Amino acid sequence: MSLVPPYIESLKAYVPGKSIEEIKRTYGLSKVIKLASNENPLGPSPKALEEVKRSLSASHLYPDGGLRIRAVLAERFNLKLENVIAGAGSEGIMSNIIRTFLTDQDEVLTAAHTFLGFMVLARSRGIKVNTVSLTGDWRFDLAALADKINERTKIIYLANPNNPTGTIFSRSEFEAFLQKIPERLLVILDEAYFELARENPDYPDSMRYRHDNVITLRTFSKAYGLAGFRIGYGFAHGELIRNLLKVKLPFDPSHTAQAAGLGALEDVEFLEKTLENNRKGRKFLFESLAELGFNVIPSDANFVLVLLPSAETAQNLFQTLLTKGIIVRPQETSNLPQGIRISVGIGEENQMLIEHLEKILKVQPAFVGN
Amino acid sequence: MSLVPPYIESLKAYVPGKSIEEIKRTYGLSKVIKLASNENPLGPSPKALEEVKRSLSASHLYPDGGLRIRAVLAERFNLKLENVIAGAGSEGIMSNIIRTFLTDQDEVLTAAHTFLGFMVLARSRGIKVNTVSLTGDWRFDLAALADKINERTKIIYLANPNNPTGTIFSRSEFEAFLQKIPERLLVILDEAYFELARENPDYPDSMRYRHDNVITLRTFSKAYGLAGFRIGYGFAHGELIRNLLKVKLPFDPSHTAQAAGLGALEDVEFLEKTLENNRKGRKFLFESLAELGFNVIPSDANFVLVLLPSAETAQNLFQTLLTKGIIVRPQETSNLPQGIRISVGIGEENQMLIEHLEKILKVQPAFVGN
Repeated sequence: MSLVPPYIESLKAYVPGKSIEEIKRTYGLSKVIKLASNENPLGPSPKALEEVKRSLSASHLYPDGGLRIRAVLAERFNLKLENVIAGAGSEGIMSNIIRTFLTDQDEVLTAAHTFLGFMVLARSRGIKVNTVSLTGDWRFDLAALADKINERTKIIYLANPNNPTGTIFSRSEFEAFLQKIPERLLVILDEAYFELARENPDYPDSMRYRHDNVITLRTFSKAYGLAGFRIGYGFAHGELIRNLLKVKLPFDPSHTAQAAGLGALEDVEFLEKTLENNRKGRKFLFESLAELGFNVIPSDANFVLVLLPSAETAQNLFQTLLTKGIIVRPQETSNLPQGIRISVGIGEENQMLIEHLEKILKVQPAFVGN
Repeated sequence: MSLVPPYIESLKAYVPGKSIEEIKRTYGLSKVIKLASNENPLGPSPKALEEVKRSLSASHLYPDGGLRIRAVLAERFNLKLENVIAGAGSEGIMSNIIRTFLTDQDEVLTAAHTFLGFMVLARSRGIKVNTVSLTGDWRFDLAALADKINERTKIIYLANPNNPTGTIFSRSEFEAFLQKIPERLLVILDEAYFELARENPDYPDSMRYRHDNVITLRTFSKAYGLAGFRIGYGFAHGELIRNLLKVKLPFDPSHTAQAAGLGALEDVEFLEKTLENNRKGRKFLFESLAELGFNVIPSDANFVLVLLPSAETAQNLFQTLLTKGIIVRPQETSNLPQGIRISVGIGEENQMLIEHLEKILKVQPAFVGN
């Protein structure tokens, strides 16, 4: 007997990155660093944790569905409450979008190399996922995406910056793209790395201009260091939000996650530290990796993507780094088996990575294609 | 333009119960009690909060998908890891079940008066929900449910104890029912109130016997007082869990929620206090309400359902109690507009309710149908 539809049977379960404890055990190492999951290397926002502690005594009560943080976000971004939704991470809201807007005959469209989560959500709904290649410089090819729209396309997923490439598209590219998009289509604009990217003058802050069929998603998981709590938010036209609110799990985000988000929004100091660390670390990693001869892609996020000569060398380098106590993230899941994504760490972590790579390259220069 | 399918358009958004702050403001009251949402009147488990505090420093890391608590639950209930799933509340797992097992042509089956959440999840997937009446004594009518199965029925939802009636079905009734259920059907057995009900010798502990197509759902929201964190768990055959794991959001439950659940499982003292308070309070409420002349249903959960002479009197009583600073929960949403569900509070809260009802009845005896 198969209790599930064929599109579920064919799915694979999510395989998380290796944990630090796991690697310590496996390789008998005392120091292991994780540059694998684009987490905040400075830890969680201290003000977020303070607010969480204050919230604990009321955690026997059901959450309010994110009402308080929606109000704060609306005020901060000069929107109305009915234009804001909060959820269990931006992936939680994405799941909500899939459940609200898609039916069997719909199709979705995105880049061939982008955040796996969206594709999994669509496929687990039995939805056909169409993709187009990235541009030659590893960016979302918005023109090609617009050309690929067919009469069944219902949602286009864009990540800006993109994960795992770290690249952005510009405001003018995005504007030109939106001109070509029929109103019956929904555009998901995933801005998970927004706080880290907005220093780039080319980066389009999607809050500055509104389109009725664009839903912008953001998260507290990255710049605010709250990945463990599950809290994200979205902005869209009131009609979109109204329908999402009907379908969302009534108690997402959790009481605790909302408290963390509210605290983080006040933590200007922590955000500034995070941006400063990321600015320096990203520059250091990019320049050092390039100097070592690696093919590394310029990034506007908190990670860099390195392209190895082959899938095999990528897998080898990943395994070799593990034995040195450094966890990075191979990219088979984003259809880039020759890629390795390295999250920006704190100064000494980035340093440790580069020092190990230098030594490794002396023994195995093939990693940079020599 | 309508971006959503008709079954989404026709849904209504979840309306949460009134908050204590709201009622204080509206009626100018200084003391307001909430006996509306079946929350734990003793607050959250103290050991859960301790464990949460210890977990905070790692909350910038992505959650492990519930791996640690799955292992602890498997050991505690003498199961294998592959038979256990954890999620964002039992409602989160239920959403996962809907996404994993249902396709457009499937139908689901449940009681006419039960937990709204399941019906909303099914309807938001465009699934037809068939229902049968409760028995004369307000219990799930398992025989009628088995008779109502058609060739499209894919999931049967049972809540034991049922919400909002608080009634249970017995082990022998459940066994007889399962004999009639084809293997292609999935039975969701929602045991959200399990810890509170199992003292009744008639209550079937579903862990004592296994069926390949039954998934048992439990929660930390009630007996452990963790509704604000969103953590629940499920037990089922490995094949069911394997498919659910492919579809579930990879980072549910949150890091914090998992820590809370792990702490709560160790909090034997708090659970005992909760059961003791509930035993006394439920008995007091049932007997006092009956004595006042109310039609009150015997309950095995942490609430009692009162049936008023009409929907109008129920609404009147609800509003009258609000003005006295007592929030209870009307039951239009479970198709019982003449019903009012009252959660068991601490001693003085239950006392306050009964005292106010006594006074109210002197002025408006129509509430008990005199």
